[in-house]
Amino acid sequence: MSNKMLTYENIDITGGFWKARQDLNRKTTIWNVYKRFCDTGRFAAFKMNWKEGMPNKPHYFWDSDVAKWLESVAYLTMKGREPELEAIVDEVVDDIERGRMENGYFNIYHQLFEPDNIFKKRQQHELYCAGHLIEAAIAYDYATGKGKFLSLMKEYARHIKTVFMDERTAAFDTPGHEEIELALVKLYDYTGEKEWLELARFFVDMRGSQNKMNEINIQSHLPPREQRSAEGHAVRASYLYSAMADLALRCEDSGLKEACDAIFEDIITSKMYITGSVGSTKNGESFEDSFRLPNDTAYAETCAALALALFARRMERMDADSRYADTIERVIYNGFLSGVSLDGKSFFYENAQEIDLENRKIVRASLHDNRNIHFPITQRLEVFGCSCCPPNVTRFIASIGDFVYNYTDDTIYVNQYMESTAKIDGLTITQTTEYPYDGRISVKLTGGARRLALRIPGWCRVYTIGKNGASVSAPVEKGYAYVDAADGDEITLELRITVRRVKADSRVRANRGMIAVTYGPFVMCMEGVDNGGSLGNVKLVGRNATVTWDEQLNVPAILCPAVRETVEGLYSDSVVTEPFTAKLIPYFAFANRGETDMRIWIENI
Amino acid sequence: MSNKMLTYENIDITGGFWKARQDLNRKTTIWNVYKRFCDTGRFAAFKMNWKEGMPNKPHYFWDSDVAKWLESVAYLTMKGREPELEAIVDEVVDDIERGRMENGYFNIYHQLFEPDNIFKKRQQHELYCAGHLIEAAIAYDYATGKGKFLSLMKEYARHIKTVFMDERTAAFDTPGHEEIELALVKLYDYTGEKEWLELARFFVDMRGSQNKMNEINIQSHLPPREQRSAEGHAVRASYLYSAMADLALRCEDSGLKEACDAIFEDIITSKMYITGSVGSTKNGESFEDSFRLPNDTAYAETCAALALALFARRMERMDADSRYADTIERVIYNGFLSGVSLDGKSFFYENAQEIDLENRKIVRASLHDNRNIHFPITQRLEVFGCSCCPPNVTRFIASIGDFVYNYTDDTIYVNQYMESTAKIDGLTITQTTEYPYDGRISVKLTGGARRLALRIPGWCRVYTIGKNGASVSAPVEKGYAYVDAADGDEITLELRITVRRVKADSRVRANRGMIAVTYGPFVMCMEGVDNGGSLGNVKLVGRNATVTWDEQLNVPAILCPAVRETVEGLYSDSVVTEPFTAKLIPYFAFANRGETDMRIWIENI
Repeated sequence: MSNKMLTYENIDITGGFWKARQDLNRKTTIWNVYKRFCDTGRFAAFKMNWKEGMPNKPHYFWDSDVAKWLESVAYLTMKGREPELEAIVDEVVDDIERGRMENGYFNIYHQLFEPDNIFKKRQQHELYCAGHLIEAAIAYDYATGKGKFLSLMKEYARHIKTVFMDERTAAFDTPGHEEIELALVKLYDYTGEKEWLELARFFVDMRGSQNKMNEINIQSHLPPREQRSAEGHAVRASYLYSAMADLALRCEDSGLKEACDAIFEDIITSKMYITGSVGSTKNGESFEDSFRLPNDTAYAETCAALALALFARRMERMDADSRYADTIERVIYNGFLSGVSLDGKSFFYENAQEIDLENRKIVRASLHDNRNIHFPITQRLEVFGCSCCPPNVTRFIASIGDFVYNYTDDTIYVNQYMESTAKIDGLTITQTTEYPYDGRISVKLTGGARRLALRIPGWCRVYTIGKNGASVSAPVEKGYAYVDAADGDEITLELRITVRRVKADSRVRANRGMIAVTYGPFVMCMEGVDNGGSLGNVKLVGRNATVTWDEQLNVPAILCPAVRETVEGLYSDSVVTEPFTAKLIPYFAFANRGETDMRIWIENI
Repeated sequence: MSNKMLTYENIDITGGFWKARQDLNRKTTIWNVYKRFCDTGRFAAFKMNWKEGMPNKPHYFWDSDVAKWLESVAYLTMKGREPELEAIVDEVVDDIERGRMENGYFNIYHQLFEPDNIFKKRQQHELYCAGHLIEAAIAYDYATGKGKFLSLMKEYARHIKTVFMDERTAAFDTPGHEEIELALVKLYDYTGEKEWLELARFFVDMRGSQNKMNEINIQSHLPPREQRSAEGHAVRASYLYSAMADLALRCEDSGLKEACDAIFEDIITSKMYITGSVGSTKNGESFEDSFRLPNDTAYAETCAALALALFARRMERMDADSRYADTIERVIYNGFLSGVSLDGKSFFYENAQEIDLENRKIVRASLHDNRNIHFPITQRLEVFGCSCCPPNVTRFIASIGDFVYNYTDDTIYVNQYMESTAKIDGLTITQTTEYPYDGRISVKLTGGARRLALRIPGWCRVYTIGKNGASVSAPVEKGYAYVDAADGDEITLELRITVRRVKADSRVRANRGMIAVTYGPFVMCMEGVDNGGSLGNVKLVGRNATVTWDEQLNVPAILCPAVRETVEGLYSDSVVTEPFTAKLIPYFAFANRGETDMRIWIENI
C-alpha cells in the first residue's frame, strides 16, 4: 500500500496540547535560538569574513544549524507571516548568494579554511549541511514564494550531482553524515524533477558498497538494502533509514522496503528507550547492542528521537499499521519533547533516562579513568558547541501537523490526535480534542465522504466509537478502527486513559525488577524535588494511583503509595520501610525545577 | 584487646564439611596442581637452565606459584607425612640452594633474563615471590624440622633488608605487589627475630610516602596509615591490609589500626559481593567505587576473596566482634570455595556472580570495541597463564583450621564451626558438628576451665545454648555469646538454619529490585541446567521454600515457587507467566555441570 501524506501546509493546529507548544515555539523558542546563534557567531559566519584572531571560528556543521532555523521560520511563516524573522532569512539568503562559489558550492567552513579539501573529507559534513539548506529552501519557497533561496540550492544540488554522480570527482562517494538523501527526495517531491530522486538513490545505493565493517558508525558496513539492524550513529542512521523508506515508497523498491522493515522492527523491539529515545551510548552517539538500554548513562539525543519519528512517518505511508504512529506518539510526547524546557528557552542534547545524583558522586569521586562512563547533563542549556538539537526542535514543533494524517483515495488515516483543521483532496476534516489530557476526540468531515481509519493507541484497552452521537461498530485491523463517514458526519472516539504499570523485555537488564508508570501516551517519571530528594531506595507499593494536576508545571501528575526501603548493611533481610505518597509527572516535564534525581523505572512491591 | 591465634598446627579437622574438602585437597587437588605446574614448566624452571627456543619460558611470578604449592605440602605434612610430596619439595629446595646468588638472592626470571635489573623494576614481583617462598619455608620448617629451606630464605630476607632498608640501593622502596610484608611478620612470629618485624614495618611505612594518586592500583597513593578506603588491585590491597593489621597488633600501633578499621568497614559496607568476593573489575583487577558491584562483569578473583579472609582473620584478633568471623564465613563457604571444582581438579581465577549467556551472545556480536566489557569465564580450568589461584586454594584449604579459634588467657573465641580437635594452652577443645548442613554444634572442653565465646552468625535469628544438656543463658556482645565452661563441660549451640531472602543496599544498582536466597552461610544460586535454560525472565514467587538435598552435587538445594515472565514486546503491561518450581543450589557448587546460566540475584514477586 502506498498512500499520500498530508503535510504541514494543509493542516492548522488550532488548539490543545500542540497549539500551546507551537505558540511558545513562535513566541519564544525561535527567537531564543536565534539570539544564542547570534551570540555564538553562527549568523555572522554567513558573511564569510571571519579572520584569525576573531572569536567564534566557524565550525563545519554551522551551516546546518542555521539552515534548520531558516526551515523553522518557513514553517512558522506558512501559518502567519513574521516579517522580522523573514528579514533575517532573506539576509542569510543574500549572504549565501554573495558567498557561494561560481559552481554553486556553498560551505562556510570549507570556503574559508579548507578550500583545497572541498569534497575531500567525508566526515566534514558538507553534504549534511547542503541537505539542510535544501530542506530550508524548499520550505521557504513554498511559504513565501520567494524563489531565490531554492534557486541557489538547486544550483548547489546540481553541482553536487555533477561532482558525485556524473563525473565522480569527489574523494568519497557518500556522505559521512546522512541527511542530503531525504532532502533530495523532498526536492524531487516539490519540483517533480527526477534528477533529485536519482541522486538520492545514488547516495543510498553507493553506501557501504565496499562492506567495511569498521565503518558501521556511519552505516557503511553493508549496502543499505542488505542492512537488517539499526547500527552506528543514531541520527545519521535514522536519517538514512528515512531516505531508504522515501525511496522504497517512490520507487516501489521492495529490497529497500525489506531492509526498512527489519531495521524498524529491530529498533522498536530491542533498541528504543520507553521514551522513544534511541542511541543509548555517547560512544559514537550510537545505537548499542540489542537490549542494552542503560538508564543512568543513556545518551538518547533529541535529534535521534526526532529522526526516529521521521523514519516511522515514512514507514506509515507504506503500511497501515499503528505501530508506526504509536512509535511517533511515544517519541513526540516523551523523548523528543523532553528536549525543550517548559519555558521554551533551553534544550537537552542528551536526554537522561535516569538521574541518580548520589551514584554520580560516587562514580565521579573515583580515580578509575578507563571505564568509559558518561552521564548525561541534568539541566537544559540554551545553546551547545554542537547545537544541532535546538533548531531541530523548532522546525519539528512548527511542522508537527505533518504527523496527523495520511490518506489514499478512499481512506483517511487519523494517526495522531490534535485539535486541528485540515484540507484533504477538497474535504475539510476537523478534529476537536483535549488529547492527550482527555481521551475524547471528535473528527468531523465536510465536503465529501470517506472511510476514516482511527488509530487505537497501543496503550489503550477500552474505547468507544460513535457516529453523530450513536455508537457504531468499527472493525479494527493492525491498530486502526475503520468507520465510514458521510459528508457532515461527526465521528467520535473515546479512549479510556488509565494509569498503567509497564514492564520491559527481561533482556533489558537495566530494567529488571522494575516497572514504568504510563498515563495515556505519557511515560511518567519521579523527580527528587517532589519526592524527598534521593530516589535510589524508593519503591511503589501495590497498584493504586490517583490522577491529579500539577498547577506549577501545568501537567497531569500521578500519586501512588510508596515506601523508602532501607536495608541494614550491605546485604540483609532486615529492612526498614518508611511509607509516603510518591508523585510522578510526565517525563517530558522533568528537569524544569533545578537539578534533582529522576527515575522512570521504579521497583513496585 | 589483643589475643592469640590458634594456628593450623594445633587443630585437626576431624570430620564434616571441611574434612571432606581437606581429604580431596590431599588426594586430588595438590597432585593436580603439581601436574599442571610440571606440564607448564613451573617446576623445571627451578633448575635455572631454561634456554631460548625451549618451551615454557619462565615468568617473573612463577616462583610464587610453586612457593604456594610448597607451603600447601607443608600444611598437609603437619597432619600426615606425604613422602612423595616431601621429596618434590626437597628437590625444589635443593634447586634453590644451587641456583641462588651468593648474596642469598633468588629469582628465576631475573637471574636468567634480567640480572641487571635485580631490584630495579617495581612491578616485576621479586619481593612478592620472596614473600611466598618465606611463607613456604616457615611452614616447611615447622612441618618437617628440615632447616635448609628456612635458612636459605632467611639469608635471602637478610639480603633484602640490606638492599632495601639498610643501604637503600634498590631502585624502588616498596614492592609493586604486596605479600612480603605479611611473610616477614610470620618470620618474626616464628623466629622471634625483631629484624623481620622492622623490615615489614619499613615496607609498610615507606609505601605511598610520595602521595602519587596515579599509583592507587598498588596502594601507593597515600601512606597506609592515612588510607581509609579499599583501593586498587584487590589481592595486593588485601595482602597489604593484612600486614597492616599484623603490625597494628604486634606494635600496638593505633594509627595503623584506625586505617585498618576504616578500610575493613569500607569493604564490607560497600565493596564486597554477597559471596564475599572483592575486586569487581578486571581493570587493574581492582576494587571499584563503592556500591559498584556489577554481577555480569564481576571479576571477583579467588585470591582476593581468600585475601579478604586473611585480613578479617587478623582484625578478629584485635576486636571480639563477630563481623570479622561472619565475613570469613561468607568468604569460605561462597566466594573462596567457588574457586575450586567439586572434583578438586579445576579452578576459577575470576568468579562469575552471574552468567547470562544470551546477553553475552548479544554483546559479543557487537562491533563496539570501546566499551571495556569483560565477562568472566563460565567453566573452571586446571591451570592458568597466571596461575596464582590454584596453589592459593590448596594452601588455604590445608590450613583452614587457622580460622576456628583465637583466645586470651581467660576466653576461647569459637569463630568458625568445624568438627575438630584443638589444643589450646594445655586444654583440649573438641567440636562435634555437621555444620553448616546442620545447626547443632557441641563444644567440649577438657583439661581446664575457660569462658567460651560462641559466634552467633549474623544470618541466625534463633538459637539456643546449653551446658551438659541444660539450657543456659549466655550474654551476647558484638555477636559472641559468652558462656563459662568447666573442665569436662559440653557446651551446645543450636543455630536455626532458615532460608532467607536478602536484599542489597539500594546503592548497589545491579541488585535493585532483586533478592538473593541464603541458607545458613550459603549464598544460593540458580543454574540454567536445573531451571530450563535461560534465567533472564525468571522470578521467584512469594516466600515459600523447601529444603532438599541434591544427590548428584552432594549439597543442599532449595525449591521455590517461580515463574517465567514474558513481556509482549519491548515495553508492555501484557505479560505471560509460566509457573515452575525453581531449584537453587549453593553458589560454591555452581559450574560443575557444563556451561549454563547462573543467577544469585533474582526478582521475587
